Amino acid sequence: MSLVGSGPGDPELLTVKARRRIDAADVVLHDKLPGPEIIDTIPEAKREDVGKRAGGERTSQEYTNERLVELAREGKDVVRLKGGDPFVFGRGGEETSHLAANGIDFEVVPGISSALAAPELAGIPTTHREHASSVSFVTGHEDPTKEESAVNWEALAATGGTLVVLMGVGKLPDYTAALREAGMESDVPVALVERASRPDQRVATGTLDTIVDVAERKGIEPPAVTVIGQVVGEREQPREVER
Amino acid sequence: MSLVGSGPGDPELLTVKARRRIDAADVVLHDKLPGPEIIDTIPEAKREDVGKRAGGERTSQEYTNERLVELAREGKDVVRLKGGDPFVFGRGGEETSHLAANGIDFEVVPGISSALAAPELAGIPTTHREHASSVSFVTGHEDPTKEESAVNWEALAATGGTLVVLMGVGKLPDYTAALREAGMESDVPVALVERASRPDQRVATGTLDTIVDVAERKGIEPPAVTVIGQVVGEREQPREVER
Repeated sequence: MSLVGSGPGDPELLTVKARRRIDAADVVLHDKLPGPEIIDTIPEAKREDVGKRAGGERTSQEYTNERLVELAREGKDVVRLKGGDPFVFGRGGEETSHLAANGIDFEVVPGISSALAAPELAGIPTTHREHASSVSFVTGHEDPTKEESAVNWEALAATGGTLVVLMGVGKLPDYTAALREAGMESDVPVALVERASRPDQRVATGTLDTIVDVAERKGIEPPAVTVIGQVVGEREQPREVER
Repeated sequence: MSLVGSGPGDPELLTVKARRRIDAADVVLHDKLPGPEIIDTIPEAKREDVGKRAGGERTSQEYTNERLVELAREGKDVVRLKGGDPFVFGRGGEETSHLAANGIDFEVVPGISSALAAPELAGIPTTHREHASSVSFVTGHEDPTKEESAVNWEALAATGGTLVVLMGVGKLPDYTAALREAGMESDVPVALVERASRPDQRVATGTLDTIVDVAERKGIEPPAVTVIGQVVGEREQPREVER
């Protein structure tokens, strides 16, 4: 049983190990997050989509957990393919807990998190000796069942480091306002990276004050990553090198 | 010109694209950080070690920057191989700025940062729905020329999320003390992951109060990553699956 990170979507950004595990597997359990470019590289006969079920309902995490145990007990070589990195806002920890509780051996194969790849592929260094001694990843899409906000935007603003918000399009107005209230300057540069590493990747930039308007004007849609901090001003446009 | 992340050290954790770029390159500029397992996969004839020069002196960042421009102008297919991810405490931003200022086209190939891989390969989820809605990476080895500490340990403690400290063995007593002063509880679990992904990876665990003693007793040495937060308690030991 391998819990495997797919990276941000470009099949070339799978690790060598991930590629090998996928190719050798009997069954690959996946949802939509790895993206079509990667899913299309897997023979249909061994794919099992746990992102939706017949009837269009979302599969529950409990179903996925049970299915992993079931397939492992059948002796199958199973890959559980997760978008990005399995342990960054991917509920990978819940899956490994369930496997461990059921006595199933597993390994975890890290993937390139879009939290790092998105700024990088837009040419933005996430840390910088002069501008950022830390970088924080935070989810823009909190568990709504939590009684109070688990994200301390005030503390995150006070770190002085780069902030990278995943799943951060829908609530962009909320957390940019929270950061302003926490004292972050309105002219701090912000970038939105849509569909990082995919053929149609787009980047939009603004400031803490303007980015909501920019996102609306440009029609930025999920999946997108928000990068907030002075490092955005250090952006140097990479160019795909022809080889 | 490709700025390529090597990942944490296991050649299997290179991305497919990184492997391809390295294999096609005329010259690979590297230092010691990618580790011997990866460096040994590159033919000696095309390696150029910019981590040290004849006489044992460290090469300056300026020398590396200039050498990259020089090789690009000679029309060479150049890979600048960086340990982990080029933009996470790797000074990659300084190299891309220099390339851009000199009109050299470049691409950036993300790598698996040891900030994510180290906890992951030790079975620790960096985020968790119940325990951590954010994760912050911070350098334990600040630029000593900075006039005041650029790392706001108080704010990092207040985020309530997971903290991952890179290059964090030497100053472990300093920042664990800073976090205690900032009000972090003494029983918060802490893990040290030494040589993540290498054949001799080791993990040591304790609490904010005990980890300095644990590190000393077990003789933990760089490179190692420190993971601080309740997620350390969610650790489920992965087992390398025989295939």
